Amino acid sequence: MKHDYLQNTPLSEAKKSFISILNSLSFYAESEKIPTALADGRILSEAAYAAISAPHYNASAMDGIAVAAEVTYGASEVSPKILTSAQYAVVDTGDPMPQGADAVIMVEDVREEADGAVKILAAVHPWQNVRQVGEDLCMGDMIAPTGTCLTPALLGALLAGGVTEVSVKKQPRIGIIPTGDEIVPPTNTPKPGEIIEFNSVIFSAMLRRWDAQPIVHPIVRDNREDLREAVLQAVRENDAVLILAGSSAGRDDLTADLVRSNGTLHLHGIAVKPGKPAVIGEIGEKPVLGLPGYPVSAMVVMEQFVKPMIDHFYKRTAHAEQDVDAIITKKIVSSLKYKEFIRVSVGEIGEKRYAVPLARGAGVITSVTKAGGILEIAQDLEGLEAGSAVKIRPLNETGGGNTLVITGSHDPLIDEAADLAKRQGLNLRIVSSHVGSMGAIQAIRAGQAHLGGIHLLDEATGEYNESYVKKYFPDGGAVLQKGVGRVQGLMVAKVNPLQIKDVRDLPGRRFVNRQRGAGTRILFDYLLKQNDLTPADIPGYDNEKYTHTAVAATVAAGNADAGMGIFSAAKIYGLDFIPLYNEEYDFLVNEQTMNTPVVQQFFSILHSKAFLERLEALGGYRVEG
Amino acid sequence: MKHDYLQNTPLSEAKKSFISILNSLSFYAESEKIPTALADGRILSEAAYAAISAPHYNASAMDGIAVAAEVTYGASEVSPKILTSAQYAVVDTGDPMPQGADAVIMVEDVREEADGAVKILAAVHPWQNVRQVGEDLCMGDMIAPTGTCLTPALLGALLAGGVTEVSVKKQPRIGIIPTGDEIVPPTNTPKPGEIIEFNSVIFSAMLRRWDAQPIVHPIVRDNREDLREAVLQAVRENDAVLILAGSSAGRDDLTADLVRSNGTLHLHGIAVKPGKPAVIGEIGEKPVLGLPGYPVSAMVVMEQFVKPMIDHFYKRTAHAEQDVDAIITKKIVSSLKYKEFIRVSVGEIGEKRYAVPLARGAGVITSVTKAGGILEIAQDLEGLEAGSAVKIRPLNETGGGNTLVITGSHDPLIDEAADLAKRQGLNLRIVSSHVGSMGAIQAIRAGQAHLGGIHLLDEATGEYNESYVKKYFPDGGAVLQKGVGRVQGLMVAKVNPLQIKDVRDLPGRRFVNRQRGAGTRILFDYLLKQNDLTPADIPGYDNEKYTHTAVAATVAAGNADAGMGIFSAAKIYGLDFIPLYNEEYDFLVNEQTMNTPVVQQFFSILHSKAFLERLEALGGYRVEG
Repeated sequence: MKHDYLQNTPLSEAKKSFISILNSLSFYAESEKIPTALADGRILSEAAYAAISAPHYNASAMDGIAVAAEVTYGASEVSPKILTSAQYAVVDTGDPMPQGADAVIMVEDVREEADGAVKILAAVHPWQNVRQVGEDLCMGDMIAPTGTCLTPALLGALLAGGVTEVSVKKQPRIGIIPTGDEIVPPTNTPKPGEIIEFNSVIFSAMLRRWDAQPIVHPIVRDNREDLREAVLQAVRENDAVLILAGSSAGRDDLTADLVRSNGTLHLHGIAVKPGKPAVIGEIGEKPVLGLPGYPVSAMVVMEQFVKPMIDHFYKRTAHAEQDVDAIITKKIVSSLKYKEFIRVSVGEIGEKRYAVPLARGAGVITSVTKAGGILEIAQDLEGLEAGSAVKIRPLNETGGGNTLVITGSHDPLIDEAADLAKRQGLNLRIVSSHVGSMGAIQAIRAGQAHLGGIHLLDEATGEYNESYVKKYFPDGGAVLQKGVGRVQGLMVAKVNPLQIKDVRDLPGRRFVNRQRGAGTRILFDYLLKQNDLTPADIPGYDNEKYTHTAVAATVAAGNADAGMGIFSAAKIYGLDFIPLYNEEYDFLVNEQTMNTPVVQQFFSILHSKAFLERLEALGGYRVEG
Repeated sequence: MKHDYLQNTPLSEAKKSFISILNSLSFYAESEKIPTALADGRILSEAAYAAISAPHYNASAMDGIAVAAEVTYGASEVSPKILTSAQYAVVDTGDPMPQGADAVIMVEDVREEADGAVKILAAVHPWQNVRQVGEDLCMGDMIAPTGTCLTPALLGALLAGGVTEVSVKKQPRIGIIPTGDEIVPPTNTPKPGEIIEFNSVIFSAMLRRWDAQPIVHPIVRDNREDLREAVLQAVRENDAVLILAGSSAGRDDLTADLVRSNGTLHLHGIAVKPGKPAVIGEIGEKPVLGLPGYPVSAMVVMEQFVKPMIDHFYKRTAHAEQDVDAIITKKIVSSLKYKEFIRVSVGEIGEKRYAVPLARGAGVITSVTKAGGILEIAQDLEGLEAGSAVKIRPLNETGGGNTLVITGSHDPLIDEAADLAKRQGLNLRIVSSHVGSMGAIQAIRAGQAHLGGIHLLDEATGEYNESYVKKYFPDGGAVLQKGVGRVQGLMVAKVNPLQIKDVRDLPGRRFVNRQRGAGTRILFDYLLKQNDLTPADIPGYDNEKYTHTAVAATVAAGNADAGMGIFSAAKIYGLDFIPLYNEEYDFLVNEQTMNTPVVQQFFSILHSKAFLERLEALGGYRVEG
């Protein structure tokens, strides 16, 4: 249980020192010659000059007749001239100009006469309707300077200029070494303790997008000697090496030691979250980086260090990201110990852009896939209040008014609707966050969402939703739209070994609950009260999950004996389901957005036949009329 | 000389009707399964759901000891508890939780005792420091809906969710058939009349960038039967077919006929410039497009029709381009007969963005490679005055303050400086336009450029540049910076067959001149006057070229007997050179921008040793100091 001391170098300092390391290693691209036709997206290693002019001959720019301009002088519609067959030649666009001809009369101004003669209705001046040699490109002209990233049009210009081969910068070969006793190649049947090795796939794809060539080496087990050999070989074969995992402070922490004893260890531990345990060093005059095992941490290190490393290799300047304004919807607490990168989902309501902080766990890769932007919290900030104006770095296009922001209770039907929208080719992007039914009310009141799912039981009347709308929107501002009926119940292990039949059977059993504010939790509390029970009677009442499937997964894993949720979640996990309550899951809509295309599109999907078929397949829903 | 009538369908109408044709043809992607690891950038053809949860087992989130939380209650630093070896198990991050354990105490809070016992300094609650099953992803959760374009992080999420294969949309196969008797594969030694076939390379690269698969078929000669066979075969083998060239109104115009007689011809001629002669039809229920032979025209058709066709295939919505504000620097005249796309170079001076219209010829591919943006002129507009505020669609990143705008006299040294800047990895983008020395004065006065090259002879004094600055900037606003000395002279064919020794020998010879406002032309006019000659004495005085190399290319092609220019241009073309005048080529700098980094960087390059070596290699320059 001994482990390395993790330094805590501030990010900006770490990046600066990394660049000076790269400088000292002369980490720059070499040059190679490749066929121009295959060079799209490649970067010129030297300026390209036209080897021939384009056009390389005088070419007719029209269909018509080629002539010596001087013989046409004076011709016009009112006084046409006659040219003998020796005085002209028929040419089409692109044809070379015959000897002695320096202009073209277009076909519309020419009439055929007897004996091959023609009548011309217009005069032309020298070089009229002729593309002279070099009109586009002259031999010797620089077509593009060093460092140019080639585009389709540039390939055309190079070929037009007779440049059939170009000198481009060689792509850097980046070796990737996955390490660890526990990791296994991707599979859908991993055993407990086995971790699927997907980081090398993520990083390979990132590297390709950054114009580098990933070389994934075989998985190395946690063995000092094996790792040393693998790394030394990778260093010989590549321009730089990434060692995956092994940099968290556990018994797997071999990377830093290895770099120290075979080269130079420059940094171990950077004041950035996630990403802290990164290792930066060199072996054999090549950069060697140790990446954290958690994917989100490692992706931060990839973006903050490996991308700049590749830009340095090419001597190219990274495109400065254009930050955009947003308002954060939740309070964020951060530590003074590090700069933090927080992934946010981004939604636009009217002219305002809202950023919803996503899960911050370094292992939660879905926080990256759901992110629409990155919020940086400076190291000297302790956090931000909800409602703060911030700058975020957008990860995909924002704006365009095609985003529908759904904030509220979780139901898989929202994902299914998003899928149907895409299937139908609608220009509708759905951003949803699961914050429970009460969260929907808050978000709509704050104007931060178009709509949200709610299923809120009024304990006094036993009715759903309506009284809440009256209470929280006494002066209007929200519209309740009928959603679906669905059955809530207890999920228990298959064949119900503990014979749980009702809420009354829960005391003494391990329960898994939903988060505060969730309609399902409110329903559960109501059922407890009806049965004269209190939270204190329910072990695990404080074990909170955010979705129906998360509750089902917890029961299925044996981490709890029972949980409350909808039928479709139980069905996916093959759990037994004890129906307890028919509830109404409706949509609370921000009144001001009711007639926007995104909201209207959403409800038209909800009322479509295809959607009803999907609900049927999920099971446990009722749709009225 | 008979040719098809070209319709003139307005662009928006043509695009709408094309989409309805695609709808009627069910031009949509089919689905294929591929390994997830290879799916970066591909588009999901159906929603992807997690097949397993992630983590799929309860995993320790810390290095430490796994325990049953209840045995730790009450432990603290002041009253530690002792656990026997049976009550805990050592775990590292990622390890599965042993049977019966539901929490982890981190290593920092554990002290080893005798006999395998440990002392714990902290209590933990159930599931503390444990990543429960499904923390990231729960089995059955939708990872991404249909139509999602996969990213590196999504590949990771899919693999973490046990999705090792994904259903993605098949890429469309787009057949490309180059046609024409005159076209030859790329070479640097084409014969007169031979046109290098580079369009298929440009379009293949564009198609790949749009996620389509280009299939380039062999070149087809201008023969009705050969073309018919090639097209019918391509239609069988591909999802859509592009026929290159053959759609201008010449004898090569076979495409429209072919489509009409083997399928349905929908459109021939669209009111767009460039791009007008496009053909749109279908054969065998596949879209068949005829693209104009000129590359710039064809690229417009690619962007306006083929890109939307591919987006339609994928049912994806094109990212709406964000137009930016700019001021045009020259008057533009356009026709009411068509919508026009004008390529502009874009420069930023301080907060203002200027758009300089580039050459409008459909054959001038360098107008595309130099373009920083596209300016659309609506069909109902006759043009725009210089100084008009316009919206342009940027083609590369704008902003960032790293653009240096050079407007003025042409000298290859500007390109060489741009190349050196990139070689040194400077964040400096040089946008230069060649408008002559007087153009430089105008541009600096209008604040539209950082600097420009000038070489303006004062006929009264025989001196260069200074008197012009005094005259045009009486109140300051511009600074003259020393550039280079260079020798101007006459370029004539090798071994000077016409024995041209001086300006006096030019009458009766074919001259090629520079454009009005060019310093070289002003010098030539001065030399004429000195020799008591007038423009009327010089045949070809009105044949204007914009660069030194263009003049040299014209002489080398035999289109003129002599032209005036700098030594380095004559050298590239192997021409004889008769030195006439030593002139001073200096830089006029916009005073307000003198201290900006871009201007300072430019002059530091100009004074570098590497740059002087390049001048030496070019020849004909003198540098003082």
